[in-house]
Amino acid sequence: MLNKIKNPQDLKKIKVEKLNDLCAEIREALIQKISTNGGHLAPNLGMVELTTAIHYVFEAPTDKVVFDVSHQTYVHKMLTGRAKAFTDPKHYTDLNGFSNPAESPYDLFTLGHTSTALSLACGLAKARDVLNQKHRVVTVIGDGSLSGGQAFEALNNIAEQGGNIVVIINDNAMSIAENHGGYYQNLEKLRASNGTANDNMFRALGLDYVYEPNGNDVHALIKTLQQVKDCTCPTVVHVHTIKGYGYEPATKNPENYHYCGPFDIATGTMKGTPSLSYSEITYQHLATKMAKDPSMVVVTAATPKAIGFNAERRQQSAGQFVDVGIAEEHAIAFSAGMAKGGAHAIFGVQGSFLQRGFDQLHQDLALDNNPATLLVFGDHVHGMGGSTHNGFYDIVQLGNIPNLIYLAPISKQQYLQMLDWSIEQNEHSVAIRVPDKIIDDPLPLSKKFTPKSRVIKQGHGVAIIAVGSMYPLAEQAVAALQAHNINATLIDPVCVSSLDTEMLDKIEPNHDIVITLEEGAKAGGFGQKIASYFGDSRIKVRNLGISIGLTQDFEPDKLLAQNGLTVENILLQSTF
Amino acid sequence: MLNKIKNPQDLKKIKVEKLNDLCAEIREALIQKISTNGGHLAPNLGMVELTTAIHYVFEAPTDKVVFDVSHQTYVHKMLTGRAKAFTDPKHYTDLNGFSNPAESPYDLFTLGHTSTALSLACGLAKARDVLNQKHRVVTVIGDGSLSGGQAFEALNNIAEQGGNIVVIINDNAMSIAENHGGYYQNLEKLRASNGTANDNMFRALGLDYVYEPNGNDVHALIKTLQQVKDCTCPTVVHVHTIKGYGYEPATKNPENYHYCGPFDIATGTMKGTPSLSYSEITYQHLATKMAKDPSMVVVTAATPKAIGFNAERRQQSAGQFVDVGIAEEHAIAFSAGMAKGGAHAIFGVQGSFLQRGFDQLHQDLALDNNPATLLVFGDHVHGMGGSTHNGFYDIVQLGNIPNLIYLAPISKQQYLQMLDWSIEQNEHSVAIRVPDKIIDDPLPLSKKFTPKSRVIKQGHGVAIIAVGSMYPLAEQAVAALQAHNINATLIDPVCVSSLDTEMLDKIEPNHDIVITLEEGAKAGGFGQKIASYFGDSRIKVRNLGISIGLTQDFEPDKLLAQNGLTVENILLQSTF
Repeated sequence: MLNKIKNPQDLKKIKVEKLNDLCAEIREALIQKISTNGGHLAPNLGMVELTTAIHYVFEAPTDKVVFDVSHQTYVHKMLTGRAKAFTDPKHYTDLNGFSNPAESPYDLFTLGHTSTALSLACGLAKARDVLNQKHRVVTVIGDGSLSGGQAFEALNNIAEQGGNIVVIINDNAMSIAENHGGYYQNLEKLRASNGTANDNMFRALGLDYVYEPNGNDVHALIKTLQQVKDCTCPTVVHVHTIKGYGYEPATKNPENYHYCGPFDIATGTMKGTPSLSYSEITYQHLATKMAKDPSMVVVTAATPKAIGFNAERRQQSAGQFVDVGIAEEHAIAFSAGMAKGGAHAIFGVQGSFLQRGFDQLHQDLALDNNPATLLVFGDHVHGMGGSTHNGFYDIVQLGNIPNLIYLAPISKQQYLQMLDWSIEQNEHSVAIRVPDKIIDDPLPLSKKFTPKSRVIKQGHGVAIIAVGSMYPLAEQAVAALQAHNINATLIDPVCVSSLDTEMLDKIEPNHDIVITLEEGAKAGGFGQKIASYFGDSRIKVRNLGISIGLTQDFEPDKLLAQNGLTVENILLQSTF
Repeated sequence: MLNKIKNPQDLKKIKVEKLNDLCAEIREALIQKISTNGGHLAPNLGMVELTTAIHYVFEAPTDKVVFDVSHQTYVHKMLTGRAKAFTDPKHYTDLNGFSNPAESPYDLFTLGHTSTALSLACGLAKARDVLNQKHRVVTVIGDGSLSGGQAFEALNNIAEQGGNIVVIINDNAMSIAENHGGYYQNLEKLRASNGTANDNMFRALGLDYVYEPNGNDVHALIKTLQQVKDCTCPTVVHVHTIKGYGYEPATKNPENYHYCGPFDIATGTMKGTPSLSYSEITYQHLATKMAKDPSMVVVTAATPKAIGFNAERRQQSAGQFVDVGIAEEHAIAFSAGMAKGGAHAIFGVQGSFLQRGFDQLHQDLALDNNPATLLVFGDHVHGMGGSTHNGFYDIVQLGNIPNLIYLAPISKQQYLQMLDWSIEQNEHSVAIRVPDKIIDDPLPLSKKFTPKSRVIKQGHGVAIIAVGSMYPLAEQAVAALQAHNINATLIDPVCVSSLDTEMLDKIEPNHDIVITLEEGAKAGGFGQKIASYFGDSRIKVRNLGISIGLTQDFEPDKLLAQNGLTVENILLQSTF
């Protein structure tokens, strides 16, 4: 059935009695594909019936459907002409997991960061109303995403705006990991009372509210959505779904199957051997320190595994580990509060999610020099990928606010030394750009860390200044230059939020060309600071960083090549 | 009495029967000072009794007191050793209006942006708990600030964290202007029901809740705070205060007295003649266009007057004017939603508040090229001032994300042309850096706007590229250079988010020095992009922007001078 559905109109031709069969087919396709290629399994399994019901009841693309954070859109993709990418192994890699307007008119926005769908839907409804149009607006947000403050801001505005908007809460009682925060007691009470509990958060905001307990029963869902679809004031449909529904290993351990690599369907065993990651290194290092120092508190905004804290470890570190929910703004100011109170927060966060907290970095951490440690993961091309998750603006954010110190280690040893230094000092907030590849340091580290540059290799004529994760490329380039009898200098800047002018002044007399390498946005980045510093000098500065393809999905090595971050191009840039 | 209070311990020596007299004295001092020097009148008048009660009941500085957004801290300053700045006209200008740890140990944080106090207090309480300390934590947040998503994120976390935190909601039923959003119906119902209404937002989050209707009765407040101060789980004290209490013109028109200049106490008449501002120019221009084009929707995040919309005008534009509350994240994504739906949002916002929306600028506007217009106010040294309100990172934010176009007009004519162009195109989101001084354009404008640079004066040898509001300085410098027989070129870059490489290539052959001027952070700013572009050229690039004093309160002209943004320094930079 699934392959015949080219659009939601085709779906509507299927008799309602056959929908359970269709859902089974969809679920089977999800399991088959994700077990082979990896992806977001558990969230999508829980959404099979709800997505089917939405497209059965509403009239997309005339009606506007917005799914928050794309990891619940796989079924939507299947029902809007893209089933082949899930049913035909030859096409498994055709699509990535994010909604994408370039891919389909049924995808209204490129979404990846959570908690924005309600705002977008509110805007769509406002546009409809001022343009005097009549279609419906429906949006789906997971319970986990509701902890993001923007979702609250949007609900607040939706209630005042009025008119037709159906806000579906896909409540699977989970975020990526377990939910955190007082709010979730409210959802729990609502589930337990079949929607009748007192102090209903949504009614408190002035929204109409309907509870649907059977979120994996397509018929029940269709009935409920039929009742509310033409609502004349904003209506919350609180749907209880089961994360991982229909695949036992996933329902038993939904966190492990939230996003997973290939696995064996029969047993649920993950394939491939997990390699040592910086997440694991970080956990091991922090766990030892935390045990000795009760003032250390590790903070996550709903991505505990990014910093190596699985469920068991979270339990062990209770009291010194806080998951604030999807709430980066709060996480940063919370860390500032702890600093003022004499504790030291270590906030581990993906670089692209940290974009939520630019203002708090400025006001709450930097202005008063409240010391905390931020560990910034994924800001490299081999990171999470996808245009929303590119953490390429971290140096723009963290490198241009005075008082913040942003460090970019090249090696495991240097990373751990920086981490220790950051936790032990209490002068500044320090962020560390966690690299992807685990390598050993090319030099013995000095005993005491200072956030000053290091000359890894002294040469002359050409100097390469390589930010953190670009070190291996720089090392290759230096070797290649040597083969051409160019004895290049190789510098590790260590800190990317300020210039080591002493070093720059020292290299100026005997170098003609400085090449900067950074795995991040060139505009507003580190290299341009060096160009500015040498603006008055006879030295040539050539900045290599990412600008081409910055807004698109990409293949990592191709993106590096497009932006000249290759040995060949560095050779080329090393001559006049 | 007031001048004898050097700290809260002195306050506690005052007999409780005398506190009404003290409050009257405080209120009188507020009115006297603000009527002379201007400031936040109405919010502080409403806080006289509450602040007195807090310092009477709690034991600061051992107990930790955090006031959200500083415009409610004047009374706190008076009671913590800084009364002279309010009672002695010779000392009226000693302090600015913001809390400041450098000023007093009773000010724990530099605060200016709203909705962060709850996060900070949550962090203080967490630090207390991990360090096994015993003091109390109390925080005060206005009802207006509750619309900021971060406040919700914090309440969510506070409820889960548990332990002693007293969260005082200073509910004066107003934001800067009237409140907006469904949430405020809930507060209204709670006020009307003496705290007993159903669907209590705070209880929904799992917080204990106490209602105090008499927020301007110091005795009632003391009694209530005594009851809750040793709470063992987080407790919300919802206090109904009256904005402007005790000064009739302010209670009658609290929006006008939220922040005001000098006024006549007897009549309430504002002194000084209001001069024409870009806020007014913007309103006039938009009002005419909106009347013809129903697809235009003006958006504010609780600062409607920044974009010229006073109460009457808001009424007139109802339907095409939306105040989303203090909710910049939502405002931006909401604008993106409108764009997708075929409407055009014009979001007017102070530059420093826009820092809340970096992620939404990236994901929701830029990635999908959803067209909206952002009018960025106050990003110049003569803006709002104060370290929290310095809008100096706007080019860092808006100038480094691909797809966003950031324009910096120098003149009124150019500003309006850009505004028209932005609204009429639908290719990109466009932000406009609204200048402070209203000047006429030095050249006749071309009929059709293009976001390309303009050569204002063609010379040779030295080229000055002056961003927007720096144009008057550049013009003076060019005249001064002329007097020294240097015929400098003067360029208006127009757009600061990309380089007009055609222009740069054209000036290269016959110029030796390029000087860039920008009223904003030099690091990550516009000038450094030019330095990078010319990194390989024989041309010297000298970037002038703000770095010294960037995190501090400042005197505008002194800050410019410190950072070399003076005619004298430009002359100096124009020679080898």
